[in-house]
Amino acid sequence: MNYPSKLIEDAVVEITRLPGIGKKSALRIALHLLKQNDNLVQSLADSIVKMKQLSKNCSCCNNITDTEICYICGSNLRNKSILCIVEDTKDVLAIENTGQYNGIYYVLGGVISPVNGIGPSDLNFEKLFLKFPSQDIKEIVLALSPTIDGDTTSYYISKKIKEFGIKITTIARGIQVGSDLEYVDEVTLGRSIHKRIDFESF
Amino acid sequence: MNYPSKLIEDAVVEITRLPGIGKKSALRIALHLLKQNDNLVQSLADSIVKMKQLSKNCSCCNNITDTEICYICGSNLRNKSILCIVEDTKDVLAIENTGQYNGIYYVLGGVISPVNGIGPSDLNFEKLFLKFPSQDIKEIVLALSPTIDGDTTSYYISKKIKEFGIKITTIARGIQVGSDLEYVDEVTLGRSIHKRIDFESF
Repeated sequence: MNYPSKLIEDAVVEITRLPGIGKKSALRIALHLLKQNDNLVQSLADSIVKMKQLSKNCSCCNNITDTEICYICGSNLRNKSILCIVEDTKDVLAIENTGQYNGIYYVLGGVISPVNGIGPSDLNFEKLFLKFPSQDIKEIVLALSPTIDGDTTSYYISKKIKEFGIKITTIARGIQVGSDLEYVDEVTLGRSIHKRIDFESF
Repeated sequence: MNYPSKLIEDAVVEITRLPGIGKKSALRIALHLLKQNDNLVQSLADSIVKMKQLSKNCSCCNNITDTEICYICGSNLRNKSILCIVEDTKDVLAIENTGQYNGIYYVLGGVISPVNGIGPSDLNFEKLFLKFPSQDIKEIVLALSPTIDGDTTSYYISKKIKEFGIKITTIARGIQVGSDLEYVDEVTLGRSIHKRIDFESF
């Protein structure tokens, strides 16, 4: 592709590194920025550098934060006897946005994936297991993705936690709200029938 | 939407201002940046600020450049007797990428649009019309979008240029290469039949 100048080409190369942005979108973004006010472009650049420099992981749950302890771990309104284990900060946000959970979280930073060479030692398990004898946790909610890697990780955690005698739950699986039965995949539908629940509890 | 920190929220707000990027994509980009090396984030920020600060319009054709005269106007290999008039730098890039044009360009920076209150005085027409008596231009190619505004602008330019006795052409219109006749819109198809061309010249 031809670029009007080396400067634009450099910017396009940098922008293309962002997820979900190809060369055409990057060029569109670059040309859009050129039309903006100098201050707006500077403030975009400053905001991402500042975010990167000042963000860190919560010392308690590994969630991303700009303070020592994240706003969830630091809140007095949270039920600290329920701990939800998730893969990533994105999953914390997704669950928070439902408004259905009032416990605390623990962010693993990934899942066990033998195919990608990620074993238990590569994840934040130690800090997790250290929590149990000392803290007053009564329930662990496993909220990992329903994939082979997610299930492997859930199984690993559940085995390790069993010795502490803590109740272990996992997010419900089944057909999605609003989906059309006809198009639901066989495994999900089969499991939904096999693991059917009381209509009353639905 | 909940954000892990104010810093991330600020960055998401800035990123959302970019074209084609909604809140979800912006958050995905922000979390992606947090996982990257400090240098990579700094270099993204630097590249966009530098591009914005050092880019200017070519004094000859208004194309975006980082030198006084853009690489097209400054090239000795270009046929300077053909001038292609386009709306935007994006259109210069699109035509350059075809490899089918070896003349020079003139970037208007917009089209006449009565609906949006853009009249001839808001566009770079003066510099364009000053070119004709002095420069050795033999053909003007009107390459504006085939919309009402584009056609209005083409008509305006053609009327103004007529007095200089320069040949005026416009990019060919018709059915798109690879399109299915059945789905071509009626106006285009009707015009393609009405303005049919010799098979030999096809």
